[in-house]
Parts: sequence; structure tokens; C-alpha cells
Amino acid sequence: MSKGRLIVISGFSGSGKGTVVSELVKKYDYSLSISATTRAPREGEVDGREYYFKTDEEFKSLIDYNGLIEWAQYVDNYYGTPRKFVEDEIKAGKNVILEIEVQGAMSIKAQYPDALLIFISTKDVETLHGRLVNRGSETEDVIKKRMKRAAEESQSMDNYEYVVINDELEECVDTIHYIVVSESCKKENKGELISNIKNQLSKWA
Amino acid sequence: MSKGRLIVISGFSGSGKGTVVSELVKKYDYSLSISATTRAPREGEVDGREYYFKTDEEFKSLIDYNGLIEWAQYVDNYYGTPRKFVEDEIKAGKNVILEIEVQGAMSIKAQYPDALLIFISTKDVETLHGRLVNRGSETEDVIKKRMKRAAEESQSMDNYEYVVINDELEECVDTIHYIVVSESCKKENKGELISNIKNQLSKWA
Repeated sequence: MSKGRLIVISGFSGSGKGTVVSELVKKYDYSLSISATTRAPREGEVDGREYYFKTDEEFKSLIDYNGLIEWAQYVDNYYGTPRKFVEDEIKAGKNVILEIEVQGAMSIKAQYPDALLIFISTKDVETLHGRLVNRGSETEDVIKKRMKRAAEESQSMDNYEYVVINDELEECVDTIHYIVVSESCKKENKGELISNIKNQLSKWA
Repeated sequence: MSKGRLIVISGFSGSGKGTVVSELVKKYDYSLSISATTRAPREGEVDGREYYFKTDEEFKSLIDYNGLIEWAQYVDNYYGTPRKFVEDEIKAGKNVILEIEVQGAMSIKAQYPDALLIFISTKDVETLHGRLVNRGSETEDVIKKRMKRAAEESQSMDNYEYVVINDELEECVDTIHYIVVSESCKKENKGELISNIKNQLSKWA
């Protein structure tokens, strides 16, 4: 069986990447990696569905035992990607989706050069700002912080292999799937097929 | 408007590439380049649909006036790709499909480095041989020649960017379309979007 692929998805806050990822795993056959975090569950969040909720001690122990492929601290909380699930699924031939921040994505790429990095963006900054404003739940100050963060994140867009615009949700979801299918047809990923065919044809030459 | 892309499709005789290409242009929005040839029309073939049928003099004049982007001689006939259609369509933002032999594909890539090269193959040589035998119309000698040709062509598979297996027709057709969509999302092809977004976000930094 051929190995699965690690698919890293990042995007601006307001790009709609969370919805894109959840539709992607609903519609197509992907494994979704669930992050571990030390932040408290919000109402409605379920352990093992949104996150694996950990105490500080549990999280530090995961780090110590090399149980995370990447981790980071935001505000006062830790977030990280459990290693075992990702590596087991890839070994089992499944494509694994990782929704992750820009920094984490770079760290993943350094460890797994074969990981596929996809950045989700709005078609322009006006749309991004509009979505944050229209949520209605964010103060002006929070919106400013998000935009500042987006400005920083945009500096890393060139480090992604693909940039997909989330203008129409289903189109964006399908496009990500198309990228994964298309990647599997790259000559570099068809080495075995090509050498088998050359080999079998050589007796007709 | 952004420029269209030149999509070059090659494949073994028996890979079913002709059917794949005709389904592709039926189902999706591509322009199909029609070759010029000096061979006589077969029953049912229409000038300007299967080929532009030319006399030797007309064909030579096309060559002399740089009217072909590539041409070759097979047996006693000339085949070539008219330049004007391809370049006009690309300028108009259309993706142009070119079904062409391996040699021609290499010549196209040298002239249009941006051309996307896709090779259609069966999943193995047994299937390829089986399809040629099952046509029923080919003598054993012709089949041997086709297999010998396939052996030669297989040496060029590594020069294509993608290899798509035609096992199930519709899947093969869709996959080629996915590759084209996916290619348009490559970071390298999103330079303008990325720099616009960086630029617009810089005032929030």
C-alpha cells in the first residue's frame, strides 16, 4: 500500500478555513488530525472532537516524550499536534488534514518535506476585513489585532505550495481535493508505475 | 484577463487518449487545437473537425511562413499544429488542449516552457496490449509495431509533468481537469494575488 500524504492547511482568521476543513472531511475521504490544547473547553466543545483538552502537566509530558510533531504557545495556552495519530494514518495510506498556524506549518514542512502546504485566502483584503466585521462578535480592537496578524501571516504565503481562494465554499473544498488528486499524478509520485511500464515494454523494443 | 494555458496530452496508442480528449472538451471548457495534415481524409472525417486537410504545397507553405508551432512526418504524411489558433486562444484566456506525439510535445515544451505536459497511460502493459488486440482491426504485425513504438515513447514519460492512468474513462477525464485547476492554484501562478494581498495588508501591520 502506498503511504498517505500530510496535508497542511493554513489561512487568515476570517478566510473561513475552519468551515472549509470540516466540509472537506465530510465530503471526501480524509483523516482529520485533532490538536491537543491546554485551553479550557468552550461551551459545546467535546474532548477528542474539537481538541484533546489537556492539563499543563499532561501537555508538558507530551512534549517531553516527543509526542507532538509541533507545538506552540498562544496567549497563555499551549496547542500541539499529536504525533501518533498522524504517523499511524499516513502509514495506513490515509491522507491526513492538519489545520494549523503558519509557524507550525513551517515546522511540519521541515520535518516532513513531503507534506503538502495549502494556504486559504479571501480574494482580497476588503473581503477578509468584511467577514471579521460581519461576525458581529468581535470588538474593533480584536479586528485590528486579527488584521495585524494577517499582515504577518501574509509574509509566509510564498512558503505554501498552493493558494486557494475561499470565495464560494464548495468550490474551495473541491479545489483542495483536486489539488491532492493532482499531486498524486505528478511524475515524481508515479516513479514506480513509470519504471514498471518501461520495464514491461522493454521486451517489445 | 489572465492568459490561458497550453495543455499537451500524449499517450500510448491503445491508452484511449483520443476518447479522453474528446470527452474532456465535451465536459469542460477547453479549446481543442486541430492538427493540419497531408494525409487523405478517411471516411466520415470532416475538414476542420478531425484535421485540416492540406495538400503538400499548402503544408510546406505553412512551414515556410512559420504557421506551425511543431510538425513531423509519419510514414509519408505530414502532421502539424497551426500556430494562430493556439496563440489567439491563449491570449483570449482559454486553456488549449493539444493531443500530440511525444516528439512534438518536447518541441512544444521547448518553445512554451509554461505548457503543461500530461501523459496518459494504461495501468500496465498487459492492459495496453489487450486493448490493441481487442480492437480486432489490427494485424499481429501492426500490434507489434505499436508495442515497439510504446516502448520508445515510454522513455519520454519522465519528461511529462503528470502521468494519468486511463482505467475508468470519466475518472481519467476528471483527473486531467483537476490537474489544470490545481495548477492554477500553484503559488507560482498566484503571484499577483499574493502581492496584492501583502500590499493591502501592509497598512494593518
